[in-house]
Amino acid sequence: QEKVEVREIKCNSLVAEFLRFFNLDFTLAVFQPESSTLNGLDGRENLARDLGITEAEGTAGGPLLLEVVRKCQQKKISGGG
Amino acid sequence: QEKVEVREIKCNSLVAEFLRFFNLDFTLAVFQPESSTLNGLDGRENLARDLGITEAEGTAGGPLLLEVVRKCQQKKISGGG
Repeated sequence: QEKVEVREIKCNSLVAEFLRFFNLDFTLAVFQPESSTLNGLDGRENLARDLGITEAEGTAGGPLLLEVVRKCQQKKISGGG
Repeated sequence: QEKVEVREIKCNSLVAEFLRFFNLDFTLAVFQPESSTLNGLDGRENLARDLGITEAEGTAGGPLLLEVVRKCQQKKISGGG
């Protein structure tokens, strides 16, 4: 079981990557100091590995958050439980 | 297969819920106009249903994004592939 704070850093990293991808520069400029994540965010490569996302042609063109949402929806449809 | 734009709205909603949860009010105040999501975000209930998240005691205390990250990590560990 991973600590919540560690998972929070991952969420922050996902959010930052998402903001960067969509060029939400003003949001990012406020987010980083407000969330104290100017340093200490996970890079995309680490994040992807950690979340079990294999970078393929399709994923490389979008933010990881989009991929994460897709995965959750797939799991819901295919797996259930 | 869901359209990418629809999934983007879900990402935006997850981000907004995350920001709200951690009281990142300044970020939220910039995010909503910059991402044009002042209206038209999914509520938590809809989001949870759509992402296959069952709201339990554990999940209710945190933002859905945290739950989404947990799910991805679980899938990676338990499932593989």
